[in-house]
Amino acid sequence: MSNDPLVIFTPSGKRGHFAIGTPVLTAARQLGVDLDSVCGGRGICSKCQITPSYGEFPKHGLTVAKDALSQWNAVEQRYDDKRGLKTGRRLGCQATVQGDVVIDVPASSQVHKQVVRKDVTARTITMDPATRLYFIEVEAPDMHVPTGDLERIARALRDQWDIPDIAADLSILRKLQPGLRKGQWQVTVALHKGHNDDVAQVIEIWPGLHENGLYGLAIDLGSTTIAAHLTNLETGEVVASAGIMNPQIRFGEDLMSRVSYAMMNPGGDVEMTASVREALNELIASVAKGAAIDTALLVEIVFVCNPVMHHLLLGIDPVELGQAPFALATSDSLSITARDLDLTAMNIRAQVYILPCIAGHVGADAAAVALSEEPNKSKDLVLIVDVGTNAELLLGNTTRVLACSSPTGPAFEGAQISSGQRAAPGAIEHLEINPDTKEPRFRVIGSDIWSDEDGFDATIATTGITGICGSGIIEAVAEMRMAGLLDPSGLIGSAEQTGTPRCIPDGRTHSYVIHDATSDGGPLISVTQGDIRAIQLAKSALYAGARLLMDEMGVETVDRVVLAGAFGAHISNKHALVLGMVPDAPLARITSAGNAAGTGARIALCNIVSRAEIERVVGEITKVETAIEPRFQEHFIAANAIPHATDPFPELAKIVTLPDVSFNAKSSSASGGRRRRRKG
Amino acid sequence: MSNDPLVIFTPSGKRGHFAIGTPVLTAARQLGVDLDSVCGGRGICSKCQITPSYGEFPKHGLTVAKDALSQWNAVEQRYDDKRGLKTGRRLGCQATVQGDVVIDVPASSQVHKQVVRKDVTARTITMDPATRLYFIEVEAPDMHVPTGDLERIARALRDQWDIPDIAADLSILRKLQPGLRKGQWQVTVALHKGHNDDVAQVIEIWPGLHENGLYGLAIDLGSTTIAAHLTNLETGEVVASAGIMNPQIRFGEDLMSRVSYAMMNPGGDVEMTASVREALNELIASVAKGAAIDTALLVEIVFVCNPVMHHLLLGIDPVELGQAPFALATSDSLSITARDLDLTAMNIRAQVYILPCIAGHVGADAAAVALSEEPNKSKDLVLIVDVGTNAELLLGNTTRVLACSSPTGPAFEGAQISSGQRAAPGAIEHLEINPDTKEPRFRVIGSDIWSDEDGFDATIATTGITGICGSGIIEAVAEMRMAGLLDPSGLIGSAEQTGTPRCIPDGRTHSYVIHDATSDGGPLISVTQGDIRAIQLAKSALYAGARLLMDEMGVETVDRVVLAGAFGAHISNKHALVLGMVPDAPLARITSAGNAAGTGARIALCNIVSRAEIERVVGEITKVETAIEPRFQEHFIAANAIPHATDPFPELAKIVTLPDVSFNAKSSSASGGRRRRRKG
Repeated sequence: MSNDPLVIFTPSGKRGHFAIGTPVLTAARQLGVDLDSVCGGRGICSKCQITPSYGEFPKHGLTVAKDALSQWNAVEQRYDDKRGLKTGRRLGCQATVQGDVVIDVPASSQVHKQVVRKDVTARTITMDPATRLYFIEVEAPDMHVPTGDLERIARALRDQWDIPDIAADLSILRKLQPGLRKGQWQVTVALHKGHNDDVAQVIEIWPGLHENGLYGLAIDLGSTTIAAHLTNLETGEVVASAGIMNPQIRFGEDLMSRVSYAMMNPGGDVEMTASVREALNELIASVAKGAAIDTALLVEIVFVCNPVMHHLLLGIDPVELGQAPFALATSDSLSITARDLDLTAMNIRAQVYILPCIAGHVGADAAAVALSEEPNKSKDLVLIVDVGTNAELLLGNTTRVLACSSPTGPAFEGAQISSGQRAAPGAIEHLEINPDTKEPRFRVIGSDIWSDEDGFDATIATTGITGICGSGIIEAVAEMRMAGLLDPSGLIGSAEQTGTPRCIPDGRTHSYVIHDATSDGGPLISVTQGDIRAIQLAKSALYAGARLLMDEMGVETVDRVVLAGAFGAHISNKHALVLGMVPDAPLARITSAGNAAGTGARIALCNIVSRAEIERVVGEITKVETAIEPRFQEHFIAANAIPHATDPFPELAKIVTLPDVSFNAKSSSASGGRRRRRKG
Repeated sequence: MSNDPLVIFTPSGKRGHFAIGTPVLTAARQLGVDLDSVCGGRGICSKCQITPSYGEFPKHGLTVAKDALSQWNAVEQRYDDKRGLKTGRRLGCQATVQGDVVIDVPASSQVHKQVVRKDVTARTITMDPATRLYFIEVEAPDMHVPTGDLERIARALRDQWDIPDIAADLSILRKLQPGLRKGQWQVTVALHKGHNDDVAQVIEIWPGLHENGLYGLAIDLGSTTIAAHLTNLETGEVVASAGIMNPQIRFGEDLMSRVSYAMMNPGGDVEMTASVREALNELIASVAKGAAIDTALLVEIVFVCNPVMHHLLLGIDPVELGQAPFALATSDSLSITARDLDLTAMNIRAQVYILPCIAGHVGADAAAVALSEEPNKSKDLVLIVDVGTNAELLLGNTTRVLACSSPTGPAFEGAQISSGQRAAPGAIEHLEINPDTKEPRFRVIGSDIWSDEDGFDATIATTGITGICGSGIIEAVAEMRMAGLLDPSGLIGSAEQTGTPRCIPDGRTHSYVIHDATSDGGPLISVTQGDIRAIQLAKSALYAGARLLMDEMGVETVDRVVLAGAFGAHISNKHALVLGMVPDAPLARITSAGNAAGTGARIALCNIVSRAEIERVVGEITKVETAIEPRFQEHFIAANAIPHATDPFPELAKIVTLPDVSFNAKSSSASGGRRRRRKG
């Protein structure tokens, strides 16, 4: 037993004996206690705040005296006067051990702090960013021992922070001399150390102590929208979020039309690359401006995106992704710089991390979903469905994870639907049909109440009722089926067959009228037979993908279903089940994960270990290619019914009884014709 | 003893037993014999040509039968028909071992071939370039095992060439897909592996077998001129050389005036950086065009330069180099890319290597001289003097190497001399004065004969006689001293004192007339007292630097002197000795090394091991700072006489007896005044 005082740190429980006079920060470092410091113990950064506890600690058999730490000193007083220290707090670099003591490290003083996600799921992110700040005192140059400023900075980092090796690009070399002299040989450097790097890269240098933090961006680069989450790299806090339309839409709504554009127009890929990079710069500038953050402080950026967007972001012609064998130019993760992507709206030395692609159809966005939802850590068999213009599916558990993508087309997003529109104010997002009266009631984005409630008209006075968005059309089709307006083959009955004048003739088929404002010069919002067919095709593709993965896994059922994506957050699990979008499962086990790809991007941004982890996981995922798999076609055709006809639905049967109706088959040839057109 | 046939390779002498049927290339590789191959043994690159020897080898106790190798095969016949194989040559990848055999590897088939330098010194360069070609067969993409093209290229390099890891920037990623498909999954890649790199960088990719070679540039970036040597990276041959004026001259003739320009003009450094990069692009484009080489094949470039040019090339403000403590932004070597330096006239992915700087006054050019002249490997004590606008000096042997720079000013280059000019046609480059008649005779650049020989006038008809260049003024001053026109203090005698009317009054002093063409409207070319003083200052600075290094080394004499630089190649060692530019040494031991800095650049370009070596050597060189050393001033003043007064000159006395003259001291105050002005 040492005679030196015993120091116990909480919450880690780490403990050790230290000589009287040892600074608390030194004790913490020697024990590997997670106590932050940017200035390296010089009493200027205040990151190492700790709270000593006094009194009896029977658990430890310890009595902590009031003088267990050294007296409050002048450095602490100066800091308290200037910035204020919370009562009970001390600076770990100033307070020294004088006797047995219990010391709490508050969360705000931990480097690897836990960030609790505010959204639906409970997973926390442990802060461990790739880029961090280091305050150093650099030797002044000496004519007799001539070394460069960079070499003396490297030595300071080695001596003061145990960082073995650094590298700096030319743009940093230019800043060294003025920075060092302005800071009188004290500077703060931002160092990036990638998970695969031996050498730390100097990203930025500031004279003296830099106190304005570091920030990063998690970017979800979708075909339609681009979302950015500006994140504080010290606290993990999302400071601001913003979205922007992907300007590539003008080259083609969906991915394949963009690939076609690149094929048909020489230089078309270059044009699309320039347009998305320009949009990113606008988005970054605007989100930084909104949060009043200097763009030079934006030192990290993580992208998740599908393979086509991945190639177009990188400036790689995507034509190979438009045809079998769907070869990626590169599938591994990428670590590059903002300069490489012309991202001039942030620090040009900012480090870019792009998650690995799983396959030519299953991109970094699916990898991000896997990082966020961790099917590889799930004990029960989970099916994760991320629906965008394409659907990506992951099926797995701790044993094995499978992935595929499925060409659902844009119907689930409200596109190619007669009254369809994007999810925006005025769009019908929820809908119910009374099974007795066959009358609909609905809710519109921008209004909090149902259309049959008092005051509804006032709530939509500015937006009007403009169309049906993705979640609305899914609910409409499912509700029509439940109300007996639709038979299992997807045929809409006539007014005579259904007993409601809302079923109106529409060419050789029928439509169901949801909202008729034509007398006021407004729109007629209806669900046509063509809309039903489009949804049937989309849901068949989605289900066939899931079913193919289940075949590959050798299972007939899944334990739970996770609906990821903005879309997943908005559709009702009951309606998804009625429609047969997903395999039969207990309602409570069909959950939404919110924007799982975006969450995956945030995790990769804040925690460097997760980057190595997702690279490993992606390497272990088995990719199933739907395009060449004959069984996909079989499942696709078999899944056409509502719900699909192949599997039993015991769980669905517990919550709803679907009417046993059958309308005439006259119009089924029309749907077949539509399908053939789509395939052509 | 193995029963397998014995294979002996010459000239290496490596030997081993190999199973019948083993290809010669395979045997060579297993023994570590240096036998080239780009295609990896596929019979298409023809780099692995070998010459089998037949008959009796008593030394080895071996009889080689005519059928010791397999029969000439169809692949060899096809190659011979198409390109021609020298008689007796075989392709090492096609010919297989059938019996005991002796195989010669001709120099052209060696990777690490020796390149004998054509210039004055005898040192050879062993080829071991950082960038080399690799032909690979890449797997076609497979939908079932989706990996990117880059990852399959990496696997091919691992499997076929044992290259563990590669990296590629975005501009290469863009080229992979078309390159692979055009080459039908056979491509040649140029890989750069730096001496400090774990990962090889893909510099270029070509469909199929690339047969047009790889090239690099060794650049000597001087304050006044920029010289480029375009070198074949496979053979080491210098394909073309070219020079260009450094356009920064318009910002200041010498380095310190350029530093001043940067100090006085905000953005002046940026302007100078842009101008030198533009000039480099012009130079590179012109030298490549002259040699008819595609600029995409220029994949390596090495720079040697002084510290101010170093910073201005890199885009770093050089102001710190204009004042004590002369701090460099970085002193270590740099490995960057052509893109970083805006060198768009070559492959933008070309790798740039810049030698390390020794100190703020002693640059990468001095490091290159050390690499070329290897003072660290010299058994006798060598003084290496590289004279430019500044002089860099190295003194050392296997024990220790010292370095300093000395502010000689531009007088040795003919600048700041009344009749001075750059070394160009029309300039007097050699001069003799008859000690009896005091009459001069001289040679002019562009003419092969002396001025007193028949037909001289015809040889200079187009150029005329325009001035005196650096070597000419040194010879003129030394000859004036030997002819008794100059006393040891440097004073020019009057016509009465010297007995020649060529000594004419010139203000309060005298000048010596070399050539008077004023009657024809031509120039009066003379040496003024001011010229003598300028040369005295320059040679005193040079000598004081050498003397300071000798003090530091604790020696009174050196064993030999090497004069490096274009200047060193042109001045006569006798005259340098008379002038007292260098310490006393036997005439035969004062030699010229030619453009040693340029040679060092070529070595670093062709041989990667030399880069690690010079970095180590530079780290071990002791830097002596002249600017702050009081003894430098003492040596400087003491070295004012011609030759200097401090040391005995027994070697000089063997070849010349200097007249014992003394002119009046009236004008010495003028020289003092000049010196004070210079210091101000």
